[in-house]
Formats: sequence, C-alpha cells, structure tokens
Amino acid sequence: MEHSALRAEFVAAIGADAVLDDPVSLRSYECDGLTGFRVVPEFVLLPTDTAQVAAAVAICARHTVPFVARGAGTCLSGGSLPVAEGVVISLQKLRSVLEIDVENRRAVVQPGVTNLDVSKAVAEYGLYFAPDPSSQQVCTIGGNVAENSGGAHCLKYGFTVHHIHEVQVVLPDGAVTTLGAPSPHQPGYDLLGAFVGSEGTLGIVTRITVKLLATPTAVRTLVADFPSVEQAGDTVTGMIASGIVPAAVEMMDALALEAVEASVQAGYSLDTAAALLVELDGPPAEVATQFAEIEQLCKDNGTTKLVIAPTPEARAAMWKGRKAAFAAVGRISPNYFVQDGVVPRTRLAEALVRISEMADEAGLRVANVFHAGDGNLHPLVLYSEQAGEHDRAEHLSTAIAELCVDLGGSLSGEHGIGTDKACSMPRQYSDVDLATMTLLRKAFDPDEICNPGKLLPTPRLCGDRPGPHRAHPLEAAGIIERI
Amino acid sequence: MEHSALRAEFVAAIGADAVLDDPVSLRSYECDGLTGFRVVPEFVLLPTDTAQVAAAVAICARHTVPFVARGAGTCLSGGSLPVAEGVVISLQKLRSVLEIDVENRRAVVQPGVTNLDVSKAVAEYGLYFAPDPSSQQVCTIGGNVAENSGGAHCLKYGFTVHHIHEVQVVLPDGAVTTLGAPSPHQPGYDLLGAFVGSEGTLGIVTRITVKLLATPTAVRTLVADFPSVEQAGDTVTGMIASGIVPAAVEMMDALALEAVEASVQAGYSLDTAAALLVELDGPPAEVATQFAEIEQLCKDNGTTKLVIAPTPEARAAMWKGRKAAFAAVGRISPNYFVQDGVVPRTRLAEALVRISEMADEAGLRVANVFHAGDGNLHPLVLYSEQAGEHDRAEHLSTAIAELCVDLGGSLSGEHGIGTDKACSMPRQYSDVDLATMTLLRKAFDPDEICNPGKLLPTPRLCGDRPGPHRAHPLEAAGIIERI
Repeated sequence: MEHSALRAEFVAAIGADAVLDDPVSLRSYECDGLTGFRVVPEFVLLPTDTAQVAAAVAICARHTVPFVARGAGTCLSGGSLPVAEGVVISLQKLRSVLEIDVENRRAVVQPGVTNLDVSKAVAEYGLYFAPDPSSQQVCTIGGNVAENSGGAHCLKYGFTVHHIHEVQVVLPDGAVTTLGAPSPHQPGYDLLGAFVGSEGTLGIVTRITVKLLATPTAVRTLVADFPSVEQAGDTVTGMIASGIVPAAVEMMDALALEAVEASVQAGYSLDTAAALLVELDGPPAEVATQFAEIEQLCKDNGTTKLVIAPTPEARAAMWKGRKAAFAAVGRISPNYFVQDGVVPRTRLAEALVRISEMADEAGLRVANVFHAGDGNLHPLVLYSEQAGEHDRAEHLSTAIAELCVDLGGSLSGEHGIGTDKACSMPRQYSDVDLATMTLLRKAFDPDEICNPGKLLPTPRLCGDRPGPHRAHPLEAAGIIERI
Repeated sequence: MEHSALRAEFVAAIGADAVLDDPVSLRSYECDGLTGFRVVPEFVLLPTDTAQVAAAVAICARHTVPFVARGAGTCLSGGSLPVAEGVVISLQKLRSVLEIDVENRRAVVQPGVTNLDVSKAVAEYGLYFAPDPSSQQVCTIGGNVAENSGGAHCLKYGFTVHHIHEVQVVLPDGAVTTLGAPSPHQPGYDLLGAFVGSEGTLGIVTRITVKLLATPTAVRTLVADFPSVEQAGDTVTGMIASGIVPAAVEMMDALALEAVEASVQAGYSLDTAAALLVELDGPPAEVATQFAEIEQLCKDNGTTKLVIAPTPEARAAMWKGRKAAFAAVGRISPNYFVQDGVVPRTRLAEALVRISEMADEAGLRVANVFHAGDGNLHPLVLYSEQAGEHDRAEHLSTAIAELCVDLGGSLSGEHGIGTDKACSMPRQYSDVDLATMTLLRKAFDPDEICNPGKLLPTPRLCGDRPGPHRAHPLEAAGIIERI
C-alpha cells in the first residue's frame, strides 16, 4: 500500500501527533537490546489507549501490513526489532497504574508501566510484584508479559506467567479480548498461559491484572566465595536437595567478578574462582533456621570467605553488583554476546567445564553470571575488534545455547527466542512440536503480520542450512543490516 | 461409515481383544460422574501404548468419527460422557509408572495411573504429587490433566497445571507431539498450559512428566466450630490477610456436617452452624508459629470449639470426613446435584447468604462443603423424587453457578465445564473471548471430532435460549437420554 494513503488512515484513527514517519524519529526505534542488528520501520505509532491500539492494528490487518509492539525495547533476543516496511506500535503512552486492589492483592496496569514502578506504586501497602528482571528499572510490564520474564528471584517465585491474573489483548485482526480471569481458576482453554511468553506474535497486551505478594517479613543475604565453580555448584545442589528453596541463588565466576568490581565496586572478592549470592526470605523463624543450614552447607563445600549483609544497604550493594554484571562486562571487553540457556541443575558443573573447554578452543574469554538455582546460565562471550573474533564469538555463543539443549535443558531461560534463536528452535523441538505451535500462530494470525520472523523458524528465514552455526536469519534474508 | 468396516480397521490396528462393541461392555461406559445422563458409544477401544492410541485416533480422523478419551470416568461435569455413534478410547491399560527421578524430583507416568498411586510410588523417597482431588483413590492422572484438577491443598500448592513438566499428546489427527519441557522454562508457546484443562478437546495425553514435592516435615490440622458461616468466613479472610497461606482451609455447613457424621463418624460437631478444617504444613518452626496465630484468629472470631488432631490417625479421620462429604450426602437425601463455582474470597459470606435465600425460595435444602481459602464453593442441592423437585433443583444449581459469575467469580473451580455447563459459558465470557478459544479448538481439531459438545457452547447444542435455566444441551439436541 502506498505510504501516504496508509499514513492518512493512521492519522484519522489516532491523530497526526501519534504517527511518526520522519527518518530521525524512526531511527530511535531501529534496534532493541539484541546488539548488532537494526531495522528501520516505515511508521512508529504512539496510541494512547486500547481503542487506539485496536484501531491501528485493524488498519494493519486490513492492508496486511506487519506490525511489532514495543515497550522499552530492552529485549535481549530481538523480539522488538522492527520489520522493514512495517509498523512499530509503541506502548509508551499507556503507562498508568489503573487500579490497586489491596484486599485481593492485585493491581491493574497498562503495558507501558515499568516493572519497578508497579512495585513502587504498591509499596505503601506492603506489597510488591515478584518478577524482577535485571532491567526492571526500565523494562515494561507489557514486555515482561511478552517474554514471560524471570529474574533473580524466580527460583522461589516463578516467572511472569505465575503473577498475572488477566490480560486484555488486541488480537491480530483488531478485536479486543480478555484472557485469564480475576479468580484463581477459570474454565476454558488457558490462553493466558499461551499468550504470556508468546513474544508478541499473538497480539498486543493493553491491560494487565498482576498478582501482588506481601513483602517478606525477613530477608537475609550472603555472598560466599569458593575455590572452584564445581564446589559452588555442589553447594547449590546441596541446598535444593535439603528442601530449602532460597529466594535467589546467583553464581558469578572469576571473570564476572572482575568485571563487576571494575565497574561498581560491590565488594566482591577478586581472588576467587566463583562466588554465590544467596538470599532467603520469609517469616523470621524460617529464615533464621534455613540460613544457618545454608552457612553450614557453604562451609561443608569449602567456602573460603562468607560475608553476610549486616544492613539493608549492604544487601543492596551485593545485589547492585549482580544486577549490573552484564553492563559491567563492558569494562573488561569492548564487545560481548549475552547468552541465555538452561541446563538441568544436576548438570551445572558439567556444563561449566564444557563451556570453559569450548572457550579455550575458540581462543575467547567467557564470563559466567547466572541463576544457579534454576540452572539458567548467562555466559557472556567476550570479543574484540580483531579480525574474525566477532564471528568466532557468535559461533561460540550459539554453540553454548545448543549445548544446553543437548544436556537436556533449554535454548532460552528468560531472554526469549526472538530473531536471535528462531533458527535454533528445531534443535529443541521436533517437527510435530513446531507444527503444533504453528497451528496456534496461524489460528491467531493467519497472515503472519503480528511480529513476523520472531520465535518460530521459517524456511524463508532459516533455509535448510544444517549445523549449529547459521547466519542470522533476518540478515540472510536481507531484512536486517549488520551494524 | 459402516460399523463392520470401521471395526475391521480398529482390530487391524490394535487387536481384536482391544475393540469392544457388544452391548453389555458398551453399557459400562455410558456415563461418568455427572449424574443423570448416559450415552452409549459405538465402540470402546482399549489401547496399550501411545502408538496404539495414535493409530486409533488416526482411524477416527480419517473417517471423521468422534472420539472421547476416558480414564476412570469420575468427571463431575460430563467431560468423559461418550458421544453417540462415537468411540471411547479408554486409557485404563496405560497405567505404568515409567520412571522415577528422585534427584530432579519428577516422575514419568502413563495417563491411566491413579492420582494416589503416583504418590504411593514415590513415598519411599519422601516425595509426593501435590494435587489431591477428593476422588484421588480412583481418578487418573490423565483425567487430572484434562480437567486441571485441584483438591483441598491447591490453596497453597496450586492446580494440576502447576505440577506438570511435560506431556506427550496424540493430536486429533493422530500425530504425536510433546508439550512442555523438563527444564523450568522453555521458549515457544506454552501449549502445555493451554492443553492442561482443555477437557479432552485438544487431544489425548499418553505420557505425563509430573513434578514431585518433598513431603512436608511438619503437618498440623485443626477443626474449629463457629456459630455462623459469616464468622467462619471472617476467620478465613483474617488468615489470608495476615499473610499465612495454609495448606488447606475447608468449610462445611451444618447440613454437610450432619451428612458426614451420618456416614463416616469423623467426630465433627452436630450442633454448630459451620466448621473450618485448617491444615498447615512446612518446616516445624514455621508451622508452630503460624498455627498459634490461627488458633488465636479462630478465638477472635468466636469459635465455640477447637480440636487439634493429636495423632496422624486423628488427622486422617478429620480428612476422611471432608473427603467423603459428597458421597455422605446420599445418607440424608436420595438425590443431589454437586455444584462447583468460585467467588472472590472477599464475597464468600455474601454468596452463602444469597445461596441460602435462593434455596428457601426454591423450597430446597443446600449443603455447603467447600475450599474456603480459594472461594471455591461446592453447594450440594438436595432433592427427592417428588414431582417437580428435580427440575427445581437443577434450576437452582445452575442459578448458583451463575451467581458466582455475577459476583465476579467463575463458573467452575475444578470440576470443569464438560457437557454440564457449556451453555453457561457466555455468562462468563464475551463473544470475542469464546471466539478466541474456538480459534485454538479449530486449529487443533478442525472437524471437531475430539470430545465434541464439551466445554464450548455451540448453536446446535445451546440454541439461543436466554436466561439462567436452559435444557441440558445434549438432551435438547436429542444426543443424550435422561435416566
């Protein structure tokens, strides 16, 4: 369809101020948190409510124009990367907390509200929203729903899907529906579960009823150093086997600790092979008992130093280090790929040894920062501008994700598949599994206009190239450009 | 298709012994736990493994013959009621525990294993399967998956969907796929969530990887009597507001207590308006502290008698009364309808008062037994053979379910929609909501051969009769016969 005619329809539906198509404005939407790729869209729309989102989507549907919903654009797998000659529907103007229901412990929010702002809005009632991705200060609830975001505390509290009662959704044809229900159980297909984590391919969420938890009455946090990652890993296995479910168990290796200290001075040790950050929360009596057990477990597994946060400020410093780890790696390497895979907890040590061998073979450094309790690895593959390093690093990063699958784990723990790993999906899923997912996709979006090219592999994007290393699908198809 | 030709195909695929079509055998499959309705199928098949289930389904698909999967047939909403001129695929021969993985706390079981047998198989390792429907001695895991079964302990532990890692499914075209994954998070559409609770309309589950929990180290149980249901209800609200999540909070009213005592002599009081059965489990220190708080809350709300189970045997007796309650009602009434609806916890007292008024208006007795912590009501509407009582009772039961929706709750908490409530679904869901669910149904089962007539309303079944009381859909369509 001709640009000006499409523009006129958008302007009539949502107003001229809400329709951007000048090159400078478009450029600010050309990439997301997946480094290295950019696509300039044809339009960026800034609707202000559900009716405007629905109107914009209905226009796209009528003319078979692809569209991509976007919150803060922090997605690490390219889930919010625009589509060329497509429309970006930004949800930044839908950022109100609409309702707080203290008695039933829930809040109704718009998708553009940031994760942390939900917790801030309800803090005065002693409540909070549990999922806590490291980007929580900037990432939006709508994006959390799209990606089924986790965070350091999802070991105990689960992922976003466990904290959503109901969503209002604009379907790819522009119809508005509600998935889920306010009561704990509802009949019919649980399309809320299928929608959460669908990476923007089934529609656009425009209102979210989140579940709130009571702020724990007691929280205790420690950092324990270990002379080897195996010993740290055995400590984690021991905790889980003893029946304790900590609020969080994070592991960092020597290179990650070095990067964090170079950046934020969290007080981590620089002379240790690995450190565990362990947090317990709950009723004081329970926390005290279990914390003693965990201290003993750390000692039994040869911890060389164990620091318990004496104050809330010290606790915040411990977390600041962990949450800043990805960014901190920039201090020790000009470039890096962030990987995200899951291995069964019992194969953690094996995975780390194999990653280390693979890094040596590739002549590259890998820093490991991860949610150890979940087996959710975040290897950071470091590389310089030196010829060939970028490609070797990308190859290694992909090989690590596929190693996770081969060990009985998963291609992604919480960052999503997006554009980044769509072509690796056949490594984890059978043809029938993928065909079954495609049934759902096509039922919701027969013309594939809703965030196309993300999540599911297609012959057009992935071709039939075998093996672990494939050219980036969108790049191979000439849709995106390498920076 | 002609009976003998279809029979020959089934026999060739799964053997003559596994194909039943004599009238006597067929009669034993004519109804399920939804009293009052029966349908004789054309065939009953008894496959022994996934390949045979897939072969049987493929034959049905090729000839567009409707089929219904069946476990123990305990469904209370007619979800496993056969379809006339259709096939029942019984999963009774798939009843092995295939694998127990203690380290990762999971087991792989076939669908015909009973709920309790899963827990029995892993008890020696200190593990158990948390969902505990009252029928757990006989109901099967496959049925639990189909209905997303709950139970008394789902307040703390959630429904079946929260305890399943992965299912192997035969799709309505006979293809075999896997939904979910062994690791805690997996990319792609969460079709596991959509499948669990789909009431047999999306395919047949043939293998289930269940999550196991560690048996709690401490359990304490009490029964507290109250002079009014409001005071019992306020006690429940007080517990939840204080941040305590008991393992179970069950309420019974005077009529339910009378029925239980007439049947199993659980030691409940007969001179009280309501009783709460409260159970706490977890680490001993936590249980002791919270149990004291709950005792105090009961006293603050005017409990007249509070009995703490002194021994495991006494605890078992308390539970035996509660779990036998539905059957026990047979002691005080020749017939009754079991209803299942959810109201927001904060509107529990209001719902009970209104149900009592509605019962008075109808000149009928209603016994209330329910999961109070969840707001999941199970009103039992009693009726005799007296002319007109059956219809008045059915009308009242339906009106109670729709009252739950009007109070902001749900048509069903755990018994499902099945044939029983399909025509009430528009009361809870908008046209777009139902159309969205139908998208999924049609994507999986375009010919609607997989458990047709269940869960979703159709014009053929429901017509356009307005109002809360509709003739039973399958009866109105001449498909089932009133006993």
